[in-house]
Amino acid sequence: MSTPARTTPHRIVATYDLHPTDTAADTLAAAIALEQSVEVPQSLVDAVGLPPGVVGEVEEVDVGAGAGGAARARLSYDPSVVEAGGVPALLNLVFGNVSMMPGVRLVDLSFPEHVLAGFDGPRHGVAGVRALVGVHGRPLLATALKPRGVSVDRLAEMAGAFARGGGDIVKDDQNLIDGFETFKDRVRRCADAVDDANQRTGRRCLYLPHVTGPLPALERRFEYVARLGLPGVLAAPFIAGFGINRSLARDHDLVLMAHPTFAGGHFISRREGIDHGLVFGTLLRIAGADISIFPNAGGRFELAREDCADIADRLGAPLGPMRPAWPCPAGGMSLAHLPRMCADYGHDAVLLIGGALIGHGEDLESSTRTFLDVIRAESNERLEPPQPQREPALDAEAPRVLKHRPEFEWTDRPSSAYKDARNLADALAFKGVRRVELVGRFGERSSTDLRYFEIEPGGYSSLEKHVHTHIVIGARGHGVLVLGGRRETLGPMDVACIGPLEAHQLRNESSEPFGFFCVVDHDRDRPSAP
Amino acid sequence: MSTPARTTPHRIVATYDLHPTDTAADTLAAAIALEQSVEVPQSLVDAVGLPPGVVGEVEEVDVGAGAGGAARARLSYDPSVVEAGGVPALLNLVFGNVSMMPGVRLVDLSFPEHVLAGFDGPRHGVAGVRALVGVHGRPLLATALKPRGVSVDRLAEMAGAFARGGGDIVKDDQNLIDGFETFKDRVRRCADAVDDANQRTGRRCLYLPHVTGPLPALERRFEYVARLGLPGVLAAPFIAGFGINRSLARDHDLVLMAHPTFAGGHFISRREGIDHGLVFGTLLRIAGADISIFPNAGGRFELAREDCADIADRLGAPLGPMRPAWPCPAGGMSLAHLPRMCADYGHDAVLLIGGALIGHGEDLESSTRTFLDVIRAESNERLEPPQPQREPALDAEAPRVLKHRPEFEWTDRPSSAYKDARNLADALAFKGVRRVELVGRFGERSSTDLRYFEIEPGGYSSLEKHVHTHIVIGARGHGVLVLGGRRETLGPMDVACIGPLEAHQLRNESSEPFGFFCVVDHDRDRPSAP
Repeated sequence: MSTPARTTPHRIVATYDLHPTDTAADTLAAAIALEQSVEVPQSLVDAVGLPPGVVGEVEEVDVGAGAGGAARARLSYDPSVVEAGGVPALLNLVFGNVSMMPGVRLVDLSFPEHVLAGFDGPRHGVAGVRALVGVHGRPLLATALKPRGVSVDRLAEMAGAFARGGGDIVKDDQNLIDGFETFKDRVRRCADAVDDANQRTGRRCLYLPHVTGPLPALERRFEYVARLGLPGVLAAPFIAGFGINRSLARDHDLVLMAHPTFAGGHFISRREGIDHGLVFGTLLRIAGADISIFPNAGGRFELAREDCADIADRLGAPLGPMRPAWPCPAGGMSLAHLPRMCADYGHDAVLLIGGALIGHGEDLESSTRTFLDVIRAESNERLEPPQPQREPALDAEAPRVLKHRPEFEWTDRPSSAYKDARNLADALAFKGVRRVELVGRFGERSSTDLRYFEIEPGGYSSLEKHVHTHIVIGARGHGVLVLGGRRETLGPMDVACIGPLEAHQLRNESSEPFGFFCVVDHDRDRPSAP
Repeated sequence: MSTPARTTPHRIVATYDLHPTDTAADTLAAAIALEQSVEVPQSLVDAVGLPPGVVGEVEEVDVGAGAGGAARARLSYDPSVVEAGGVPALLNLVFGNVSMMPGVRLVDLSFPEHVLAGFDGPRHGVAGVRALVGVHGRPLLATALKPRGVSVDRLAEMAGAFARGGGDIVKDDQNLIDGFETFKDRVRRCADAVDDANQRTGRRCLYLPHVTGPLPALERRFEYVARLGLPGVLAAPFIAGFGINRSLARDHDLVLMAHPTFAGGHFISRREGIDHGLVFGTLLRIAGADISIFPNAGGRFELAREDCADIADRLGAPLGPMRPAWPCPAGGMSLAHLPRMCADYGHDAVLLIGGALIGHGEDLESSTRTFLDVIRAESNERLEPPQPQREPALDAEAPRVLKHRPEFEWTDRPSSAYKDARNLADALAFKGVRRVELVGRFGERSSTDLRYFEIEPGGYSSLEKHVHTHIVIGARGHGVLVLGGRRETLGPMDVACIGPLEAHQLRNESSEPFGFFCVVDHDRDRPSAP
């Protein structure tokens, strides 16, 4: 039985192909609607009385309209959960539990505009990466540093030769995984080799190291790559998770090239899982990939040409305010595949050729030229000056020491009033407080901020608490630290540590100014009243 | 053709079931060995000359020995990549690219002892969670707070009623996803309701809130849960990634209950993906889950009883030094299923019943008693005093201010020599440096450490660089900051910020002691010579 279509402009619409076994398609669709939104039976939904729209709704079931004779079902969901939880919440909502139901495949998604605006999407995208390399009118040529096991010298040589030959992007193989100290050495040497080549050619080949590992090692690697001035990373969202790489790439303004390792389960069965185009197109783009690597038709893996075309379409199609991302067909591609790849994907594609390029001949530099010439013959190359490598975070010419001046002022750092009193509840009232932002608001890339606060006689800070911690160092005069109802005096060079969710206040009960340094996390939660 | 067995005590062995289409099983096995370790053709391996062991090796191919007539192939891999990269590197190694090959299913894994010792595994495990609740000799009863859409009052009421009825674990539904301020309010109110109930019963029901979201929101939620004194969290490793939840749970000493949302793709096809037992048993246990929720046979999802038995076996079987974890069968379970669940899983299981328990009657407290009575009838309950709720991170009675004393010493904080000179290369030489660790080494749960350093006249710190940053605050006398080859003087209350990878040194060229505070990340990389 089919359910007729409805319209739902303000909801997330997920389309599934259903291969029900012992039930009707619309019964299965109704079960999915409950499972994905509230995970209780309809009887309980009726008994508790939920607000309208919370439960998923079956918009349409069209028996036989899906792939391979499946019923095609359109369901709509309340987007508030995705507004709150981002990409991880989206995956849970549209395919969380139902991923474990036989015969259910997610084949399409559509979003209200305001939900799309809430996703970050690619930070650089097609235009951003083109600006970095200054190459227009043709696909980009990429390769991988491999095989694991060769020396770092050899890897650096390869990276340099590819760059000298005019290659656009050289990434680490995803099997290059090592301890942090080895990683630092290897990445720096490959980066230096590419830098040298770039200075020789006047062009800009991008080197993207592979970053992986559990936290906090992963964060440290992203930071190291950014500090070297490299433009981006290769990362594995299907292993590392859909939230993490994007956050770290955004924090460090890095190009994010997504590797498909461990993705197979999500699409390989054509009865279950998620449509290829959704996985490598829509979902990776929403999750912030600038470049999405996927196994090309005709290579070592078995995607069909139409699957690949769908991926490329979804990476480039209008999707709210989100930038287009690069399709990057790969996996057993060779010189002979290049003309077809150019024809299939057009100019806005990164063509990734690993083993076949490295193994093409003794001289990787001239092999790279050979491969590029084939691409050029199929396109219309136009070169512009590449974007210069990023500046170091701190201006080398700027004074690096903030000099202390009389009355606890500092060079280049103005005093300001503490908080904006108009936005504060009475519970967070304060009095007579001056603030100097010293470190953290001036591009320092420090994970910690340093402020100086000074409270005039009779004044006090807000009585408040928060998850983040404080370290307080007394600097001028004497004050009182109220902490969990206890009072302790604080004088110059005394140190206090205020723990998470401990209610605290600093008071000046003396007749002289009371000043102190306060160390806090750069990313921190808002204070609330105790 | 079959390949005979070999032995490889020092390598990771992965067993695959192969359904090759147009090739022989041992050819496919050899292709997997290359794909997963070096991802280049054998010809290139031969040309470059790799160290022994780097390339994956086919240990055995037994045609027809796999499930459904598949060939069963045992391959061995160099473990060094996993030693360096942990669980994410393991997934990439044993099933990264090959996950995208049709007809290849990962069915078993074995590890050398030293590799197992490198995984953290469950932090609490079966014994740890039993100690928290003080319940022995029977399975634990768990429920979920749902449905999404009911008021926070109602959720808190449910949590309290379940705890008063004697329930052991109440977790958020994985659909409870909201903004941080709403999350804080909801979690605190549910925690308070469970606390009140626990004080009434003298027992300890555990409340595990659902944590999700991209970084850094996810970190903040883990921290909030820990600060409330809650014992653990519900998290989604198949969405958030296999590295992240374990790191955060370990940092905060939390029980990690793993939800299977979005896991389906990994196992649902029986020709591809990963064996159910490996996914929910071995992999989640290695990745640190204390409790692994999976869809039970006979519920809303279609796992077979033998799949479920295999999961439970793998969660409990000897696995190096790793603690056993709890199987948590779930998904459409009801009162009628309980005797069978008790028989199937024995005492060391968490039986999760959501909708059927919540919808059982008007009074959740007495429904919980009814369900528990069924479990008790099938087992041999023995109660011990539960572990008291965790202490706040800081002792409320301890002095909270470190008092500055003459000569820049502090109460409760001894001075020590700077670094251990014996482990330092000449390049990192230093002279005449005293250090006082002020904050970060004493259980403060601060993400930042504070140290005081003092350099005697003529002394200097190491000339070094690192990824982490420094904030330096002058405190005593005058010194020189050497930063990237420039020199700046630093006196009391002057502030300097040393960026990532900037070579720096602090020198005392005066005739008085030079002292300064130094703020650094608690988790930081080792310095190296410039």
